[in-house]
Amino acid sequence: MPGDLIGDSVLVKDQAEASQIYNKGFYGYPQSGGGIELDLLEAIFLQECDRLVVSEEGSVVSHPELIRKAARASPDFGIRYIVYRDLRQRGYVVKSDAGDFDFRVFPRGGTPSTTQTKYWVNAVSERAPFHIRDMIKLSQTSDQTRKELLLAVVDEEGDITYYQAAAGAPHAPKTAKVDEGEVEGFLLEDRVLVMNGTGQSLHSQGFYGKPIGRTLQLSLIETAHLMRLGRLIIRLPNTGRKMGVAAFKKKATSIQSDFELRMRAYDDMREKDLVVKTGFKYGTHFRVYDGDPSNHHSRYLVHAIPADYETGWPEISRAVRLAHGVKKDILFAAVSAKSVEYVRLRRMRP
Amino acid sequence: MPGDLIGDSVLVKDQAEASQIYNKGFYGYPQSGGGIELDLLEAIFLQECDRLVVSEEGSVVSHPELIRKAARASPDFGIRYIVYRDLRQRGYVVKSDAGDFDFRVFPRGGTPSTTQTKYWVNAVSERAPFHIRDMIKLSQTSDQTRKELLLAVVDEEGDITYYQAAAGAPHAPKTAKVDEGEVEGFLLEDRVLVMNGTGQSLHSQGFYGKPIGRTLQLSLIETAHLMRLGRLIIRLPNTGRKMGVAAFKKKATSIQSDFELRMRAYDDMREKDLVVKTGFKYGTHFRVYDGDPSNHHSRYLVHAIPADYETGWPEISRAVRLAHGVKKDILFAAVSAKSVEYVRLRRMRP
Repeated sequence: MPGDLIGDSVLVKDQAEASQIYNKGFYGYPQSGGGIELDLLEAIFLQECDRLVVSEEGSVVSHPELIRKAARASPDFGIRYIVYRDLRQRGYVVKSDAGDFDFRVFPRGGTPSTTQTKYWVNAVSERAPFHIRDMIKLSQTSDQTRKELLLAVVDEEGDITYYQAAAGAPHAPKTAKVDEGEVEGFLLEDRVLVMNGTGQSLHSQGFYGKPIGRTLQLSLIETAHLMRLGRLIIRLPNTGRKMGVAAFKKKATSIQSDFELRMRAYDDMREKDLVVKTGFKYGTHFRVYDGDPSNHHSRYLVHAIPADYETGWPEISRAVRLAHGVKKDILFAAVSAKSVEYVRLRRMRP
Repeated sequence: MPGDLIGDSVLVKDQAEASQIYNKGFYGYPQSGGGIELDLLEAIFLQECDRLVVSEEGSVVSHPELIRKAARASPDFGIRYIVYRDLRQRGYVVKSDAGDFDFRVFPRGGTPSTTQTKYWVNAVSERAPFHIRDMIKLSQTSDQTRKELLLAVVDEEGDITYYQAAAGAPHAPKTAKVDEGEVEGFLLEDRVLVMNGTGQSLHSQGFYGKPIGRTLQLSLIETAHLMRLGRLIIRLPNTGRKMGVAAFKKKATSIQSDFELRMRAYDDMREKDLVVKTGFKYGTHFRVYDGDPSNHHSRYLVHAIPADYETGWPEISRAVRLAHGVKKDILFAAVSAKSVEYVRLRRMRP
């Protein structure tokens, strides 16, 4: 099939060929005067499949030449082409008229004339920065338009990992609040001990702490939360003096500089009736249960980050891969002055 | 069994009781005048097990009191006690006379009088910094003394993850070097394309690049390595001008700021006949094969870090957990001006 390169498009003028290529794979955009206009991604893909011969002012434009031209026209062409090509080869119809996104993709077997868009897809280099703010915005837009958001991340060898991103907090069934009164603990370095069995109610009501014999050991974050709820008083080991919540938080922050950030996410999840424990073994801040941790596996891994957090995709890749390996969902909790917003990321194969 | 608190020790003077506790669990250190001297870890553990009543100048010292005393005497007592207690409860004989390490631990069923120390153990808070330099030194010392090095990392809830650290590079069977001559590629953004089938020898000899149809796509790091070996020439897409190795490295560093660091580790492993590919999917720098990547799984994940690298244990925990989940070993490659040194970390249950 012949096509003419004009600017950044390739025009296929022959009516019969144009309708065949449009109707079979939904390549190109039909023109008012008949024929179709292919964008460079489409043209290069069809050229690679030996279905298109491109000419410019009468002379043939080779595949390497057309790639070079596209790369000059758009600095991220290489990344977008790798993703476009992969999705096409997986049998999807992929179109570039996708608003804020790179591509819209139809469900397998679906077409623009019969079905709604299923996925918004962005093609991303592993070297591109990851901004949590953008990710929240994109996932909210996808949510509002009832489509799934896929991030197709291209590594330096051209392999693609697909991530599905979705907005929304983890949730648990509501549990009745119990007023159990206050118990007393003492601070031992970076943990708090509630001794002689007096901590039992904290463990049975909310699964706080870890019982070691008749001692209940609480983490700094559990302690601050329980102090705020009025269920725990802390005394210093040396003087026996009582500590206020503010003094305790200050102490905790001196031990763990991001204490306040974690605390905000912890409080938010506890208020949602989730049971929150440290995720250290998984290299995340929290592992989160929607019920009794002694007879459930944790469903979520949650990492608290500032709402303006920026990192590299390799860090995201690591977190998602790990969660996938232990059959949990990873959520990033973006903590701002006003709110905690959650984004869930999953690896998937489209 | 009664014992007297004197300074930071508890003395058990009764000969019969002293020999029984020493011979059964190897608690304490025998004294010249008979009896044994328990250190505070031992005394608190025996007190917790209701096997010891501690007195000071005639009055009983309670369990909470003795813990507070120990915490005042040594700021990391809490962490060390959690590990000591765990190893004892797992049935190991644990002694604190361990030189540069916190503990020496005998093989299960072994004792100081019958067997050699099996493990050096250091008790570490998850909040302690991780210095790669220290880790290399400790693992080399362990290697020289033919013992295994365990890092017992205590998380904020008092749970322990044991890591085994060992020095040494990954290795592969030697392969014959082949001189295949030079081919030509062109730089497209952050990758290099060798077109029209001319890159085939690079892929068949050394498994460089990724074939996409008749195009071989090389990563920046593969490109720099092959240029240095004299197997590849690069031309710029716009001008067709030839690029030198130095100019290419400069360009690569502008795209990926830690290019030089990765390059050093990559070159070192390639010189050891390993096949090195990106580890992006695992959130590490490299996945490493000791043979043909098309019919082996990669054995190693390798992360390149500067020789003076310092991080937190949660990052180490994440990397080891991930590698464990995909049945690979994680190695940290510490890159200095002179050398690349490797430390392998594995999760284990003693």
